Amino acid sequence: MLFYWFTIILIMSKLKTFFADCAEIVEKKLDALVPSAQIEPKKLHEAIRWSLLVGGKRFRPALLLAVGKTFGAKDEKLWRTAAAIEMIHTYSLIHDDLPAMDDDDLRRGQTTCHKKFGEATAILAGDVLQTLAFQTIAEDENLSAEIRVKLISELAKAAGTPSGMVAGQQFDLEAEGKSVSIQQLEKIHHRKTGAMICVAARSGAIIAEANEQELEAVSNYASGLGLLFQITDDLLDVTQPTEVLGKTAGKDISAEKATYPAFYGLEKTRRLAENVRARSCQELEKIDKETSLLDEIAEFILKRKK
Amino acid sequence: MLFYWFTIILIMSKLKTFFADCAEIVEKKLDALVPSAQIEPKKLHEAIRWSLLVGGKRFRPALLLAVGKTFGAKDEKLWRTAAAIEMIHTYSLIHDDLPAMDDDDLRRGQTTCHKKFGEATAILAGDVLQTLAFQTIAEDENLSAEIRVKLISELAKAAGTPSGMVAGQQFDLEAEGKSVSIQQLEKIHHRKTGAMICVAARSGAIIAEANEQELEAVSNYASGLGLLFQITDDLLDVTQPTEVLGKTAGKDISAEKATYPAFYGLEKTRRLAENVRARSCQELEKIDKETSLLDEIAEFILKRKK
Repeated sequence: MLFYWFTIILIMSKLKTFFADCAEIVEKKLDALVPSAQIEPKKLHEAIRWSLLVGGKRFRPALLLAVGKTFGAKDEKLWRTAAAIEMIHTYSLIHDDLPAMDDDDLRRGQTTCHKKFGEATAILAGDVLQTLAFQTIAEDENLSAEIRVKLISELAKAAGTPSGMVAGQQFDLEAEGKSVSIQQLEKIHHRKTGAMICVAARSGAIIAEANEQELEAVSNYASGLGLLFQITDDLLDVTQPTEVLGKTAGKDISAEKATYPAFYGLEKTRRLAENVRARSCQELEKIDKETSLLDEIAEFILKRKK
Repeated sequence: MLFYWFTIILIMSKLKTFFADCAEIVEKKLDALVPSAQIEPKKLHEAIRWSLLVGGKRFRPALLLAVGKTFGAKDEKLWRTAAAIEMIHTYSLIHDDLPAMDDDDLRRGQTTCHKKFGEATAILAGDVLQTLAFQTIAEDENLSAEIRVKLISELAKAAGTPSGMVAGQQFDLEAEGKSVSIQQLEKIHHRKTGAMICVAARSGAIIAEANEQELEAVSNYASGLGLLFQITDDLLDVTQPTEVLGKTAGKDISAEKATYPAFYGLEKTRRLAENVRARSCQELEKIDKETSLLDEIAEFILKRKK
């Protein structure tokens, strides 16, 4: 038992360093890819930078990097797509926080974009972050044109509709205040959170030119990871305070959102999370590479505190 | 004089047929490219279709097609990019009409997206139309991957910041109710309207693999056309009623927007429009192709009634 906890602590500490290193470099890349706040229109560029460079978890870029490394891709081939996926994620956060959507005041530990810069500028900042994401991949000279169009197509499907993030957001809006089944809840999460996590992992494999079988295993692993991420997000919303989360805690309850703890209670939700992690990691056995980093990421998500 | 008017009427009638034919086919292509309203989330897809398939002028796709044809590109290579540009244009209209932006009730002769489907769905419909635009080009199997990434990069620059459409929209927001110079006005229009018109023309030339010199002439021609489009838009806002325009007339005056007629008065603005058309068409002389269709498009924009 002591050995188990020692291993867990070691993994968590190693992964913390991995995520911190990734976050630092992604932030630098993002800083270089978006227009400076000294360039007109300054307010728009300040708003983009406010939301993008504030130091989120950068989980999606880190996952892309971890999968890419697992399959032997060089870092310089991975960074731009990693940054692009973070741009899409950030645009979705800016728009989700708008008064017409979740109407939230706090994100990543600071005032939301529309609260700081006004609604109109926040809408435009989100819009243009999406544009920049696709531009960033289209202009990546470290990748062949064939790989770039494949990545853009995959990212668009994951961010779009009917099986991507925006479709998930629409389902989520329509479910608010209504009683939804666990199947409907999974349909929402699979699109709203899962699709972008899945495309981050797939992009790493695509850049590394993994074969079809490997790509399928990565997709299954990442789909599980996406679900795990959502389940732990729901758990954190009810178990952690606002100051730890960096976003409003207990928001799901006050918005009457369907969540896993609301369905199953805390204990059963925790067991579900453990099962999802285990199923997800089983997929890695189909890959004939050293996949311990990906195993550890699943463990990290399961145990995360924010 | 009689001959002059006869020629004008002939051109206008020929161009009307050209635009009508383009609009019909673009609408069919768009219909096939966006998810059916029978597919979940239905409300989102209905909202997209409400705004996209309502029959706008389809000026940008028609311009792309005209330039592409001028340089000898086959139709099947042009349609997807033409449709993608119309998707970006429509997403910008949906977001521009939002309460936090222009707060408009009428667009293309019908209720605006947010008035019909609610603000949250309208934001998402705009978001996902942008995603679909880039996906549409990335998945165009009639074009080489090299041309696709070039088109995506160009479209992103034109739709984005600091020299594209969203930057123009931000400048426009900041100028509202303020006194702006004619230089500032041109800076706004060059980005807000001009960039997307310019990229439509350039895309036609890029697909047809025109050379650098030809591409430059097309860009200069289209920049002029963009300015002409804006000047005539300002003129129509004060000279035509709402029922002809299909959008709220006199809106610029009530919003205290800077316009060409507000600066120069009607007569001087009309002369400016004629000069811009002439300068724009001079650029076509640098192209060693049959460019009469492009000349006629400039004439058509100058004389348009809506």
